Amino acid sequence: MLIIMRTDATQEQITAVVDRVESQGLKAHLSSGVERTVIGVVGDRLKISHSQYVHIHGVERVIPISRPYKLASREFRPEDTTFPLNGVRIGGEHVVIIAGPCAVESRTQLLEVAHAVREAGAHALRGGAFKPRTSPYAFQGLGEFGLELLLEARQATGMPIVTEVISPEQVAMVTRYADVLQIGARNMQNYALLHAAGESQHPILLKRGMMATVEELLMAAEYILSHGNRRVILCERGIRTFETSTRNTTDINAIPVLKSLTHLPVILDPSHSTGHWEYICPIAQAGIAAGADGLIVEVHPNPAEALSDAEQALKPERFANLVKQVQAIAQVIGRSLAPFPIMNAVQPLPKP
Amino acid sequence: MLIIMRTDATQEQITAVVDRVESQGLKAHLSSGVERTVIGVVGDRLKISHSQYVHIHGVERVIPISRPYKLASREFRPEDTTFPLNGVRIGGEHVVIIAGPCAVESRTQLLEVAHAVREAGAHALRGGAFKPRTSPYAFQGLGEFGLELLLEARQATGMPIVTEVISPEQVAMVTRYADVLQIGARNMQNYALLHAAGESQHPILLKRGMMATVEELLMAAEYILSHGNRRVILCERGIRTFETSTRNTTDINAIPVLKSLTHLPVILDPSHSTGHWEYICPIAQAGIAAGADGLIVEVHPNPAEALSDAEQALKPERFANLVKQVQAIAQVIGRSLAPFPIMNAVQPLPKP
Amino acid sequence: MLIIMRTDATQEQITAVVDRVESQGLKAHLSSGVERTVIGVVGDRLKISHSQYVHIHGVERVIPISRPYKLASREFRPEDTTFPLNGVRIGGEHVVIIAGPCAVESRTQLLEVAHAVREAGAHALRGGAFKPRTSPYAFQGLGEFGLELLLEARQATGMPIVTEVISPEQVAMVTRYADVLQIGARNMQNYALLHAAGESQHPILLKRGMMATVEELLMAAEYILSHGNRRVILCERGIRTFETSTRNTTDINAIPVLKSLTHLPVILDPSHSTGHWEYICPIAQAGIAAGADGLIVEVHPNPAEALSDAEQALKPERFANLVKQVQAIAQVIGRSLAPFPIMNAVQPLPKP
Amino acid sequence: MLIIMRTDATQEQITAVVDRVESQGLKAHLSSGVERTVIGVVGDRLKISHSQYVHIHGVERVIPISRPYKLASREFRPEDTTFPLNGVRIGGEHVVIIAGPCAVESRTQLLEVAHAVREAGAHALRGGAFKPRTSPYAFQGLGEFGLELLLEARQATGMPIVTEVISPEQVAMVTRYADVLQIGARNMQNYALLHAAGESQHPILLKRGMMATVEELLMAAEYILSHGNRRVILCERGIRTFETSTRNTTDINAIPVLKSLTHLPVILDPSHSTGHWEYICPIAQAGIAAGADGLIVEVHPNPAEALSDAEQALKPERFANLVKQVQAIAQVIGRSLAPFPIMNAVQPLPKP
Repeated sequence: MLIIMRTDATQEQITAVVDRVESQGLKAHLSSGVERTVIGVVGDRLKISHSQYVHIHGVERVIPISRPYKLASREFRPEDTTFPLNGVRIGGEHVVIIAGPCAVESRTQLLEVAHAVREAGAHALRGGAFKPRTSPYAFQGLGEFGLELLLEARQATGMPIVTEVISPEQVAMVTRYADVLQIGARNMQNYALLHAAGESQHPILLKRGMMATVEELLMAAEYILSHGNRRVILCERGIRTFETSTRNTTDINAIPVLKSLTHLPVILDPSHSTGHWEYICPIAQAGIAAGADGLIVEVHPNPAEALSDAEQALKPERFANLVKQVQAIAQVIGRSLAPFPIMNAVQPLPKP
Repeated sequence: MLIIMRTDATQEQITAVVDRVESQGLKAHLSSGVERTVIGVVGDRLKISHSQYVHIHGVERVIPISRPYKLASREFRPEDTTFPLNGVRIGGEHVVIIAGPCAVESRTQLLEVAHAVREAGAHALRGGAFKPRTSPYAFQGLGEFGLELLLEARQATGMPIVTEVISPEQVAMVTRYADVLQIGARNMQNYALLHAAGESQHPILLKRGMMATVEELLMAAEYILSHGNRRVILCERGIRTFETSTRNTTDINAIPVLKSLTHLPVILDPSHSTGHWEYICPIAQAGIAAGADGLIVEVHPNPAEALSDAEQALKPERFANLVKQVQAIAQVIGRSLAPFPIMNAVQPLPKP
Repeated sequence: MLIIMRTDATQEQITAVVDRVESQGLKAHLSSGVERTVIGVVGDRLKISHSQYVHIHGVERVIPISRPYKLASREFRPEDTTFPLNGVRIGGEHVVIIAGPCAVESRTQLLEVAHAVREAGAHALRGGAFKPRTSPYAFQGLGEFGLELLLEARQATGMPIVTEVISPEQVAMVTRYADVLQIGARNMQNYALLHAAGESQHPILLKRGMMATVEELLMAAEYILSHGNRRVILCERGIRTFETSTRNTTDINAIPVLKSLTHLPVILDPSHSTGHWEYICPIAQAGIAAGADGLIVEVHPNPAEALSDAEQALKPERFANLVKQVQAIAQVIGRSLAPFPIMNAVQPLPKP
Repeated sequence: MLIIMRTDATQEQITAVVDRVESQGLKAHLSSGVERTVIGVVGDRLKISHSQYVHIHGVERVIPISRPYKLASREFRPEDTTFPLNGVRIGGEHVVIIAGPCAVESRTQLLEVAHAVREAGAHALRGGAFKPRTSPYAFQGLGEFGLELLLEARQATGMPIVTEVISPEQVAMVTRYADVLQIGARNMQNYALLHAAGESQHPILLKRGMMATVEELLMAAEYILSHGNRRVILCERGIRTFETSTRNTTDINAIPVLKSLTHLPVILDPSHSTGHWEYICPIAQAGIAAGADGLIVEVHPNPAEALSDAEQALKPERFANLVKQVQAIAQVIGRSLAPFPIMNAVQPLPKP
């Protein structure tokens, strides 16, 4: 931490800051410039509280130096974190594709999509049983019955299941059905949920909040990691900006930035980050070209009948084309789509 | 809802849209312009799904017309909603001030602040027992012991208590201690929590998410209202923008916009919306001048020792000055600070 | 400037940075923390270039310490800058109101508005003769004929004239007609125009760009000040955010922030910052309550006929009410509307 | 245009709106819904002014339907616009790369970069002679001497020159030296400059403002096109958002959105859109994968000595690698780098 003193700070004020620093078991390094003094604070970063110094007379600003996350950082763990999802390894050399409907709507719909995306090359099946919706009057998902359908689709296709949890008390139950628990953008800073996700020791797909900085996303991951749960996938899904021609703005920069700052796998959700089916394929290609470890894509057999997010649902044949394009891009940058386990034998779900 | 057809849409495509509209029990009104056809869709707004039409050939865009909230709207209820908080009425002609520390840190700290803000003119006491913190390593609040201290401060000062809930399963417990449940900015779209808050039938202070639109804030309120819980206070607390000279950007426009769109009381939190103690008083004045029904302000007896949000904590003497200024501004626009019940008799908490 | 080294920086890398610092005639102060070394760079701030250090091996980040503006800062000039506009002093204890139509449309329209706003209490007349419009097909202003009408209105009412310049070669000509040259939001970083405005030695009203930070606004002012032209008025006119319920988001925080950082007068434009006539009066009140030195407001005798920005034009009677409200708010915070010179004698325009 | 009436609008109010519409030579189509009436306005879109209707009693909102640009739209011209830059065709099947230093600093620097980027595969040379800088104290460019150096580099390498103009009166002069006039982000809405650029009939590279919407970018292009100058290249260069881990946020979505809305060539500037050399190559790859027609990249022989934007300058060897990667990505999506004219014969500059 650096404490920037005002240009008119007195010697007494500087001494008062130094005294306070030392009273907390930290060390102060003074650097007196032409215009002002800067005080460097050295010691255990978790003991340092920036905000308290702002009230001391003569202090102009306080600048944090250490990054506020630790377990999520590349400094803590230089090599990439990788882990298998029912036989498909994420975070390594291969690109992984998760696909499926926004919401599980019926047995027919789900199985149709599941088979279609598996055939097209997807590695995992997504589908919401509990839907966070802006309107209380909108379809809120099939609940546990939706989870049962997902389990059936898992049996039928061999694909691991990714599905959303929206409250801490659901975590144990959803863990019985799903291979990966998704925490949605609106819940990225729902700390009770992050704690429960950490405690579950289950793989977590953590979506960036639409208003969250890259650093806040890593802090949210830190909550999960701090429970010893290291299987966390980060997902860029678009941020909110002034631009209205797309639903969100894909923060494509966040892909290489995250790959530089953290060892965790990073995937892109081009469906939410664009909000319009026409733009999903080019942005999926861009995500892989920028270094993403995978994609999560919304596919619906008949978008015009979808109960949620119809604008951004791809038809299965368009999705199949997307997979082909993504495979080609991946190869150009020295990667490829992950192989799907030869025996589509369904692995048992990890014990909750 | 209006469906804008492409300039090159064929008659068959237009007919297909009309057929679909009518198949859902709605009516279609065609308006053929020089360049394109626009189809107005008329009927029960809750039956209309915009997103499904985007996939029909020939459709360019779909524009919603009806606002997506109902119970929260002025159209539904033209007169202002007002309700008492332990004898102080909010949402009416009077301005109400809620004050207290960011977090309850100790019995001494809380009682000192409580007496100080009561003496200065505050009507209710705020204080967090469960703190949502960006870092898992930061002080997370005293938990239920903090609630007990709040109850003691309530007894001692006669002020009703406002405190935050951060997960649905806490709601019943916190209701036993607090007069108003606060839902924080990061949880504004935590729908499980909104449902629980609605079911509690307890007064709710709902803070706007830092990247939520005014409409999304009203939709979040609609979740609570849809459970028959009409005692909802909305709180503008700053939004996230590109400007970094303050912690957030106070969306002062939101005050008159909300007062125009909804009947619910609207207050301002100048502590979070600026993030710096120096700017709190002018922005509090601005909020009242713009028509806010009240303020919620962070006060700490010794900000330099505060365990959270120290930069934005006011010292009690500065808060006392703020109250005087706010009273003067209120009178100029035909309002005044709410009277505090003469007998500081503490009312029983509403039954959970 | 502070140079933050990576945690794995070698001693050689640190030495290389220090050598470079010293080769530029600056001094380096090392501060070695638990995890990393921080190098403070001391010397003439105008000689320091942050960006060059980023490429040196071992450097993680570079943090500027000194503010990049000088002449605009309170540190350079602690007392408020004030100056007269044809007898009305801006920037001092009094509040100044500038009002008039978005665009000068005709002699009748302009004179009608001019008399109405003068009668209501305005101190200066605004009106655009050259209009920057988003569309090339929209009304672009009356040009020099509009300036002649403004001069006539100046004669008729005694009010000084504020009007926009949109290119450097216009400056000399507009200076012959106007008391204050306005630089619009879209031109805030049109540096050729800023230079010309500085050279003119004429009072300048500089509007904040809709995408400009407070610091960038001050840097734009610095361009003008660096030519020795000290008569600069800053204007907050709303910034662009994700919120769409108003045309822009009034950054009310910017008022006290600017008053703290700079000695220049700061006014608010509630017409553009809200974009809707209904919200102008409450936001004007908020601006004065937050400490603004004045307002600039769009008034039109018949908004429904206005050739530009009709949504945000106030009718004269509403404007008269706004002035009364603003006067009341100003008095509560120890200010008042500036007195208008008793003899409405028109002063000669300053020589160009 | 659609006029949405309030739910409580009276029949008289509706009639008043219709009368006004018809008095302007336009037609009104009424659509009466369950809750409100919507009035469609049909006729020449350039005659329609939305803002005037807002003031009529009973009107709630006005929604534009037609896009406000015409010449720039795909509807006006369905096929892609392509044109040659000294023998290299932009906007067609091939990808074009423009590279060079942020600023022309010296003859040695410029010629070294020019040869290096030509050898690596660049098609055109960029370099600023007039630099718009945030600080008046920063290096402002070499002026016309810089243009002379660019002309020399053009002779030496056969590459066409792209350089910035910052005021209307410069346009004629810069046209004598440069093949393409660049209009920078800060000047995207400098309408005097846009008019001059249009009149020049010279190719224009128009950069998106950092807080300009896609629609505003197209409106700025419309200014140029309205002078009959059809040779306009659009450039996405990052927008300003709340995220601070990169200098700007690359709006990668804007690439396919623009390709869908307009026939003009669209390129990406990954140097400004990331602001950090480490992220330029992945984002350049992403841009081509998303469908961009080209790139503009900052290259400096010794970034640590660069006089501006050092953080985002690539070393020539990194740039050479970027070109190889981009070529590979381009081929995967059915494109390739444009061939450079076999005879590096320099074409005469178009007559000003």
